[in-house]
Amino acid sequence: MKPATRQVIKHIGEDTLVSGFRKLTSLHLPPSVVVGPGDDTAVVRTGGDRLLLLACDMMMEGVHFRREWATPWQIGWKAMAANLSDIAAMGGEPAFAVASLALHGDLDGALADEIAKGLVDCASRYGAALVGGDLVGSQGPIALDVAITGWVEEDLLLRRSGARTGDALLVTGLLGASAVGLEVLRRGLAGAGAEQHHHIARALQAHLEPRPRLPEAQAVAGRRRATAMIDLSDGLAKDLPRLCAESGLGARVNVDSIPVDPCYAALPDISREEALRIACARGEDYELLLTCPPAALDEIADAVKAASDTPVTVIGEMVSAPTVTFLDASGRSVALEPGFDHFAGST
Amino acid sequence: MKPATRQVIKHIGEDTLVSGFRKLTSLHLPPSVVVGPGDDTAVVRTGGDRLLLLACDMMMEGVHFRREWATPWQIGWKAMAANLSDIAAMGGEPAFAVASLALHGDLDGALADEIAKGLVDCASRYGAALVGGDLVGSQGPIALDVAITGWVEEDLLLRRSGARTGDALLVTGLLGASAVGLEVLRRGLAGAGAEQHHHIARALQAHLEPRPRLPEAQAVAGRRRATAMIDLSDGLAKDLPRLCAESGLGARVNVDSIPVDPCYAALPDISREEALRIACARGEDYELLLTCPPAALDEIADAVKAASDTPVTVIGEMVSAPTVTFLDASGRSVALEPGFDHFAGST
Repeated sequence: MKPATRQVIKHIGEDTLVSGFRKLTSLHLPPSVVVGPGDDTAVVRTGGDRLLLLACDMMMEGVHFRREWATPWQIGWKAMAANLSDIAAMGGEPAFAVASLALHGDLDGALADEIAKGLVDCASRYGAALVGGDLVGSQGPIALDVAITGWVEEDLLLRRSGARTGDALLVTGLLGASAVGLEVLRRGLAGAGAEQHHHIARALQAHLEPRPRLPEAQAVAGRRRATAMIDLSDGLAKDLPRLCAESGLGARVNVDSIPVDPCYAALPDISREEALRIACARGEDYELLLTCPPAALDEIADAVKAASDTPVTVIGEMVSAPTVTFLDASGRSVALEPGFDHFAGST
Repeated sequence: MKPATRQVIKHIGEDTLVSGFRKLTSLHLPPSVVVGPGDDTAVVRTGGDRLLLLACDMMMEGVHFRREWATPWQIGWKAMAANLSDIAAMGGEPAFAVASLALHGDLDGALADEIAKGLVDCASRYGAALVGGDLVGSQGPIALDVAITGWVEEDLLLRRSGARTGDALLVTGLLGASAVGLEVLRRGLAGAGAEQHHHIARALQAHLEPRPRLPEAQAVAGRRRATAMIDLSDGLAKDLPRLCAESGLGARVNVDSIPVDPCYAALPDISREEALRIACARGEDYELLLTCPPAALDEIADAVKAASDTPVTVIGEMVSAPTVTFLDASGRSVALEPGFDHFAGST
């Protein structure tokens, strides 16, 4: 038994566990597997002119959601949205999904219906279909896992590993709204004063009913100029190092360029600097992080603008030294706490 | 809100919940969906000459397994085997799988490795590949969900709905070994006397390391004579009525023909009659239940024999009256308790 695994899971961390999983499975992958574990989805060749994408995403009660804060419909919506976001990050189109739901026998039966409705509504909204599932008992928390398939034309596929030195680093949308939404729920601010209503509604929607960036991602992929992409499911401070590691590069980020969602104003005691920290360290924004040659920036921004009203912002560039640095306006390095670790953090 | 769902889940039952789920999703299924929710897998048309199969199967600690009884490797193996069995039941070949695993942060890291190894070993053994997954935190029980894809040529597809009046009803293998294995674990008999060793080992293997009937199913499908198939994941008393309902028929079963695994001899106080009851009422044998015209019986038995050493047994026939009856040698009806309900039962 390897010494590296003689520790409890929360001290090992998700990335180390995933890396062990990659080593294990890599011994058994047939040549039809274009991308195995370690990207937003697996990618396999199935004989047609498109590649098949396959991903799954599990949500556990008490870790990913609380029933006091999220409606059953929202629990279903978000689980499907997280999967659609994975398909988006590869430049793909979603197709068919299946969902497994574990429920305690003493729960109200309407709960299962409402979760299923959230799953179906989100899938339909983005052109996917829920075609099957499994419904089982749980002695404790609700567990909801969605697995999804999608398709991508081979020359539109965007992996984490394609970035090149000198590429610009971009994000779609604004960051941090989901984290603010979680804070609003934690602090019981959901019913706060009217002047904050707009910010609160926006933050709660980002946290409870995220919108996967499928039109944006397909617009990016369609131009064939982007070099790498990942979704910000775990936050910039965690997902950017992943993109860098897969590309064998580092990145330099100008923290003042990071588009922090102004809804943090809903939290009375949070400065822009703290909001930035939260936006980078916590995930679930489901925005896209991508790279492209600087010469392609306008084309990509135009493509996203034509497909949506989502902004695209340059936040830095890819560098050859394999480290990620966050710099302020005066060029000083800013320490950003690591992103949410599923085993260290809690809802 | 529908009155039917104003009850707690354990009083509603799995089949009613699944039926609601089918109604909900059926409104949104695109024409490419050949089979939606309600069979062993979903079946979709993807443009090639084969149909894509998609299924998922969740296992929860405390409901489907206990860590005192199953090794982490066995937990992984069984979760993959259950999915492979679903692909088998459609007459298909497994292809790619993804797995989501939720673990408490205080668990030993080796656990994740061992579960993954069980998943990979089972997938490899049957020609499937684990290509991705999700690893998340849990505040309580381990949750393990596997989703799998597979392929089937359209004219080999076996649904639950194709049985015809007068068709013979067959099962592969022997029934009840998994249920005996569970009893052996419950009663702490795993280390019992040498004269029972063979039975105990067989029962424990059936319960903890089931073998999906893929070669057998493909042999059956390849002859194109079978009319319907389902896997016995929830037991004959529950899965046979499902096949009947989908086919719009009933069935007459000769209980003396049901091939009860002799390993029940490992349990000192259980008669053949009780063993039969357990074999029908509890699931997880992962044998196949299928129908074919009587004239095709020899051909199907020969095909399975050529592919494996698994016996095939005729246990009854399909009838037009939409009820399932279990009859003894004298033609008297035998009441068999309903199968394991995920929400009513427990490990």
